[in-house]
Amino acid sequence: MTAAEPGSIGELGEFALIAKVTEGLPAHAQVLVGPGDDSAVVAAPGGSVVISTDVLVEGRHFRRDWSTPVDIGRRAAAASLSDIVAMGARPTAAVVAFAGPADLPAAWAVSCTAGLRAELEQLDVALVGGDVTSADAVMITVTAIGDLDGRDPVLRSGARAGDRIAIAGRIGWAAAGLAVLSRGFRSPKKLVDAHRYPTPPYSAGLLAAHSGATAMIDVSDGLIADARHIARASAVVLAIDSSLIEVPQELASAASAYSMDPREWMLTGGDDHALLATFPAQVKVPSSFVVIGQVQVIAEAGAGVTVDGHFVTGAGGHEHFRG
Amino acid sequence: MTAAEPGSIGELGEFALIAKVTEGLPAHAQVLVGPGDDSAVVAAPGGSVVISTDVLVEGRHFRRDWSTPVDIGRRAAAASLSDIVAMGARPTAAVVAFAGPADLPAAWAVSCTAGLRAELEQLDVALVGGDVTSADAVMITVTAIGDLDGRDPVLRSGARAGDRIAIAGRIGWAAAGLAVLSRGFRSPKKLVDAHRYPTPPYSAGLLAAHSGATAMIDVSDGLIADARHIARASAVVLAIDSSLIEVPQELASAASAYSMDPREWMLTGGDDHALLATFPAQVKVPSSFVVIGQVQVIAEAGAGVTVDGHFVTGAGGHEHFRG
Repeated sequence: MTAAEPGSIGELGEFALIAKVTEGLPAHAQVLVGPGDDSAVVAAPGGSVVISTDVLVEGRHFRRDWSTPVDIGRRAAAASLSDIVAMGARPTAAVVAFAGPADLPAAWAVSCTAGLRAELEQLDVALVGGDVTSADAVMITVTAIGDLDGRDPVLRSGARAGDRIAIAGRIGWAAAGLAVLSRGFRSPKKLVDAHRYPTPPYSAGLLAAHSGATAMIDVSDGLIADARHIARASAVVLAIDSSLIEVPQELASAASAYSMDPREWMLTGGDDHALLATFPAQVKVPSSFVVIGQVQVIAEAGAGVTVDGHFVTGAGGHEHFRG
Repeated sequence: MTAAEPGSIGELGEFALIAKVTEGLPAHAQVLVGPGDDSAVVAAPGGSVVISTDVLVEGRHFRRDWSTPVDIGRRAAAASLSDIVAMGARPTAAVVAFAGPADLPAAWAVSCTAGLRAELEQLDVALVGGDVTSADAVMITVTAIGDLDGRDPVLRSGARAGDRIAIAGRIGWAAAGLAVLSRGFRSPKKLVDAHRYPTPPYSAGLLAAHSGATAMIDVSDGLIADARHIARASAVVLAIDSSLIEVPQELASAASAYSMDPREWMLTGGDDHALLATFPAQVKVPSSFVVIGQVQVIAEAGAGVTVDGHFVTGAGGHEHFRG
């Protein structure tokens, strides 16, 4: 923080910037010591803590000319919160490391943090600390923690033959939005917004855990890629029936305009932070989930993902899926 | 991760890099779910979790030509661990977000993580998760968590009139090392190494907590600057007696060579991660601490720091301290 552009974070300096971005933080019952000491202290009533960290880098994960600072802050928070929720846990608090160029407008940093705070507040998650430094590009690392309230976590490794595979939340929307932006367009707004910030089905995570989900994952790499993570961890086959995946009108229209198959976005696009879970045959799948297939054990095939009976190899991306 | 320089992290790719840097992670009793799922789960027997995050950025906090990757990894871990220890807590686990250029040698990333892991292992702290992405410069964000085992945290705000001020660990060494490196020298090695990675007095934190320390802080900004944090949070004056601060021969020699006052480094230099604490008059100060002054309440003066009876204003840096 050496530059002194008027209104920049370099001019403001580290401590004044921290004061600005933490201004008016609401009280949270779970926070025993909030920002301002060497560390924060957060209640862990369940006797364990769930923790996950995610980093967003300018030019890799977002562009400042495509997304507002509020969008980027929301997205940074959502990526970590979604990982906590995917364990069947209740997110409680987060810390953020923010790096940016000294000439970055302080208003940008404040808006970005406002977006991050708003996303956290949706789930009553407290921002309890952070670090601020200068760097050539904006980089935001959010580490979230959560509590299981004494329950067992829902892992990737618990899927069993006969379980139903179900998904909550949107898939393919962020990929469609990126396709739109990459072609120089700014609409349809609903798609573009889906790229700018996800709207993870947070409440579905706890519902799944309470309903007896055997495995769960945050879909951040793409449906097939993340289904494969469950398949491998559980040593099973996740058999997806694509006829159970309804293509939303918005995706169908955009894909048609670009002569693309919308199912490509839905099967391989990441960043929507849907939740993919497996449920035993005897339990009621929560209504926020849509069943899209079944867990199988195919002795000679090992672990993997099939779509409509065909094994999908490779990364699950466009070409691989077609092959 | 798009470039494919032979042996680079771009060639290796995200998942292979993660596999490499997490290879052979030892088991830790406190880890309920380790790396490889959406989140990790760590025991929190004390019913609360202490959390702190710290980011190191290439070109700001370190230079790849001045420090080895092992040094940088150690330093990244130490910065966060020291913040946990300064609360009187026992660090239990850490997650790391690692960003680097696609052409960064994979061996560099592996060595850096090895340094980080070695520093964590010193305290039986488990590396339980992380994130890896590409960026123009190396950036390492370490978030550490810890447990208070049911004790109250030692805050910055607990210093009371009559308490003794005491310090554990080294001060001024990292600043002296930076001065040496900045002048183009690589020795004395002991000073240069002190810049490359700190050796925080980790065990002193728990000892201070058990001994009844009323306030504690990790000295990362400099003795005066961090003493002022305690003074303000506690609404007291920290009266430092510089005659109680012994100047090590190594600092005296280096300062003499540059016609400098070694006390400047000791009073204002950061990054050594000493622990500054206050102890009530009736308790025995642990032997790893050296008493350097007393807490006072001076009605007309408010909160602040004095050195040898003179109030130190400003940032506590070179000019300010002299002024």
